Amino acid sequence: MAGQSLQDVFTHALKDIYYAENAILKSLPKLSKAASDKVLKEALDRHRTETEGQVKRLERIFELMGQKPEGAKCPAIEGLSAEADEIVAEFEGGARDAGLIAAAQAVEHYEIARYGTLRAWARQLGHDEVVGLIEETLAEEESTDDLLSEIAEEIVNAKAA
Amino acid sequence: MAGQSLQDVFTHALKDIYYAENAILKSLPKLSKAASDKVLKEALDRHRTETEGQVKRLERIFELMGQKPEGAKCPAIEGLSAEADEIVAEFEGGARDAGLIAAAQAVEHYEIARYGTLRAWARQLGHDEVVGLIEETLAEEESTDDLLSEIAEEIVNAKAA
Repeated sequence: MAGQSLQDVFTHALKDIYYAENAILKSLPKLSKAASDKVLKEALDRHRTETEGQVKRLERIFELMGQKPEGAKCPAIEGLSAEADEIVAEFEGGARDAGLIAAAQAVEHYEIARYGTLRAWARQLGHDEVVGLIEETLAEEESTDDLLSEIAEEIVNAKAA
Repeated sequence: MAGQSLQDVFTHALKDIYYAENAILKSLPKLSKAASDKVLKEALDRHRTETEGQVKRLERIFELMGQKPEGAKCPAIEGLSAEADEIVAEFEGGARDAGLIAAAQAVEHYEIARYGTLRAWARQLGHDEVVGLIEETLAEEESTDDLLSEIAEEIVNAKAA
């Protein structure tokens, strides 16, 4: 039966991002291993730890919704991960590091879009505590995206050029 | 042979976004047809026209690089399109409109990430005219994302709740 309410589509998106965050948890160590620049490796490793906290925050949101945490296969994150794998297969050295940052930033932007949507829906639905949890994660994703831009512009791109 | 230079990975990303923009050109009329809100439909239709201009801008960038425009299969856009199809299959009415905006914003954020990367790489490589072209498209994508947030927050989410 087709979902008709904002709460239905909110639950759908929550399962989608829960699947995505768990996929990201698995892919970050691969990206870090494939990177050569030390600062980039450290940033990816730190973001892995941060992602563990984001998964826990999602589990708290499920709990607030009276639901068990459950993922729903998210084709977007599969595609984004496939792009990162392509970079590792097709590039090496500085070009690979630059490409890995691009792939990681595409993932960050996917999350920024998703959490931005979830925040707007949670506000509309009056889930105030959920809004606060989403904002904590959103701030982390935006700051990771900024950090990756900085590493690209100040270190990696010049080494690759 | 593995690509080693920033120019190699720039060319790779250019083909990826050229494929993605062409896929978006095809998917926007489907999203507009599936939407019910008139303002949302109009925004998606206007963005289709804008996307035609973005494809032309990419063709100009290929020309400036001395290359023929060529797409390379982009798994991320395939995944993002699959998510939009899921929304159409699983939701109706206001919930579908809210989900379609979410899907369209995930695509916008993919493009914002990609064009942001391409701009940083073009700057590093000294492709000044390319930087200008990318900035025109980037401004359009950011303004489309803002417009979709506005339509969600001012019209669609309340109708779906």
